[in-house]
Amino acid sequence: MRTIFWKDCLWLIDQTKLPEKEELIACETVDELIDAIKRLSIRGAPALEAAGAYGVALASHEREFSDLEEMKRYLVEKAKIIASARPTAINLSVGVERVLEKALSGESIEEVRKIALKEAERVAEEDVERNKKIGKNGAKLLEDGDIVLTYCNTGRFATVDWGTALGVVRSAIEDGKRIKVFACETRPLNQGSRLTCYELMKDGIDVTLITDSAVGMVMKKGLVSKVIVGADRIVKDAVFNKIGTYTIAIIARYHKIPFYVAAPKSTFDLNRTAEEVLIEERSREELIYCGEKLLAPREVKVYNPAFDFTPLELVSAIITEERIIYPPYEF
Amino acid sequence: MRTIFWKDCLWLIDQTKLPEKEELIACETVDELIDAIKRLSIRGAPALEAAGAYGVALASHEREFSDLEEMKRYLVEKAKIIASARPTAINLSVGVERVLEKALSGESIEEVRKIALKEAERVAEEDVERNKKIGKNGAKLLEDGDIVLTYCNTGRFATVDWGTALGVVRSAIEDGKRIKVFACETRPLNQGSRLTCYELMKDGIDVTLITDSAVGMVMKKGLVSKVIVGADRIVKDAVFNKIGTYTIAIIARYHKIPFYVAAPKSTFDLNRTAEEVLIEERSREELIYCGEKLLAPREVKVYNPAFDFTPLELVSAIITEERIIYPPYEF
Repeated sequence: MRTIFWKDCLWLIDQTKLPEKEELIACETVDELIDAIKRLSIRGAPALEAAGAYGVALASHEREFSDLEEMKRYLVEKAKIIASARPTAINLSVGVERVLEKALSGESIEEVRKIALKEAERVAEEDVERNKKIGKNGAKLLEDGDIVLTYCNTGRFATVDWGTALGVVRSAIEDGKRIKVFACETRPLNQGSRLTCYELMKDGIDVTLITDSAVGMVMKKGLVSKVIVGADRIVKDAVFNKIGTYTIAIIARYHKIPFYVAAPKSTFDLNRTAEEVLIEERSREELIYCGEKLLAPREVKVYNPAFDFTPLELVSAIITEERIIYPPYEF
Repeated sequence: MRTIFWKDCLWLIDQTKLPEKEELIACETVDELIDAIKRLSIRGAPALEAAGAYGVALASHEREFSDLEEMKRYLVEKAKIIASARPTAINLSVGVERVLEKALSGESIEEVRKIALKEAERVAEEDVERNKKIGKNGAKLLEDGDIVLTYCNTGRFATVDWGTALGVVRSAIEDGKRIKVFACETRPLNQGSRLTCYELMKDGIDVTLITDSAVGMVMKKGLVSKVIVGADRIVKDAVFNKIGTYTIAIIARYHKIPFYVAAPKSTFDLNRTAEEVLIEERSREELIYCGEKLLAPREVKVYNPAFDFTPLELVSAIITEERIIYPPYEF
């Protein structure tokens, strides 16, 4: 099953429920989708690209319109709101804009709906295809016996299917290589423990869970041969990804372990530098509670950025659907 | 109130209940104490030294003995069990052995009991005194305006009172310096969120909670001027401390931020090298559950060492009750 798909309305796997249960949410309105994005029921840059794309289709289907002009104004307005549901991953707005542009070329309400949905389906389809290409390219970097450390979730749940960094692992295994994985839990929302471990175990891939802070020790002990992570945005001078990625990149460099980034071209935003990108700060509650359990004093000050950026000098290679890009990075 | 004290029997603050409530446990038997140590109701190397010391006193009080020889055999036997309740922190066995040796000099059952308890009280008293000295020495390293990043809990709950690394912060503030603290949550048991934030807020010290993996970003942003951590054992070539310490030491070095260790002399074990110390592995459940919440698939493989070791070349100075030791370390 895909992470996100259209069947009469928009469906997505509610990732906040994993690993306890794999449950679907139906989104019949854009508001429901935005809520799902903000709650991280769907997350991961490539999956958000599809969510953005389907979001515009949803806007065209969610209500009646008195005429075409009203519909188009509505789509433009809703597109803006969807694109800004999360500020750091660029892919969300890439998906939105692509479908919006196509949809605005429609000449009747019904045609706009058809075009929007068809283009959104194409975005989703292309995501799976490009992930397979990323996987194929990246698999060349992995050798039989490699132990890959990864962070957050970059697999089927972060994409429409297959995955980026985990797609590379899947492709290498499909090629007959024996690959093991260390998954970091990825605080505060534990996408590593909840999603990466879940999907790798389901596929029979050997995975061991560690705390984020154990990365130093497992590298020192020689237990890791390569790092592969995903990306939320790649700018001129840095890779934005889940908070903690930069820490891992430094530790990998210290132990002379290759640090690879796997991401589709739509993640690139080469007109900007790291300093120009807004980093989303998430709620303090994410560090204060874990489920019902109180982890910290309710009134404590919290600094909870969702992402950090890793300067390109710490990145050994970037794997895209087109090729492997090596330093010095000249995009 | 002290973290551990004797009043008719042995009392300790149940740290597993913090920050929800500050609750005491009474230990009337050595078995209850060992259980409390294993559950981490009491933890922190210096606090464990006092726990070991009081444990021998408890062994002498917990039952009747038919004669002095039987009592001494019993104490020797129980002492071994207490000392091995946790394998990595050396202080536990230091406390046990100190009281055992004194107690064995007693010439009657009643005298052994008195000697054991008196010596245990002295261990606890000395811990508070030496922490004040560590604080006083370490405070020289802090300047007005410093922002200290710390890890795990090294404060009043890790000791009998005052703390080691947090004792340094307390002493610097007592000297009139304005010091702020970043506390890392310290997965998987969140001693940073639960204990460090709690005790600093209670003392009105400015503390901000971050995830362990955010250390890279806060250092890159220039938000941290110094790191101070505690230690569970200091050997010839390395400092053992909570898993994650080594990761922070590398990140600090990368950003040219001083990395200090604060620990009493009883933490030193200079006849050993890092490779000779057993690192406790804790249960997989610590990463799979958080309270009632399932964080990972129940069957996932987990690697959950409680400690790591930081080679001395990454340590800028070690603060003890006697002095500040600088590299090259010649103990």
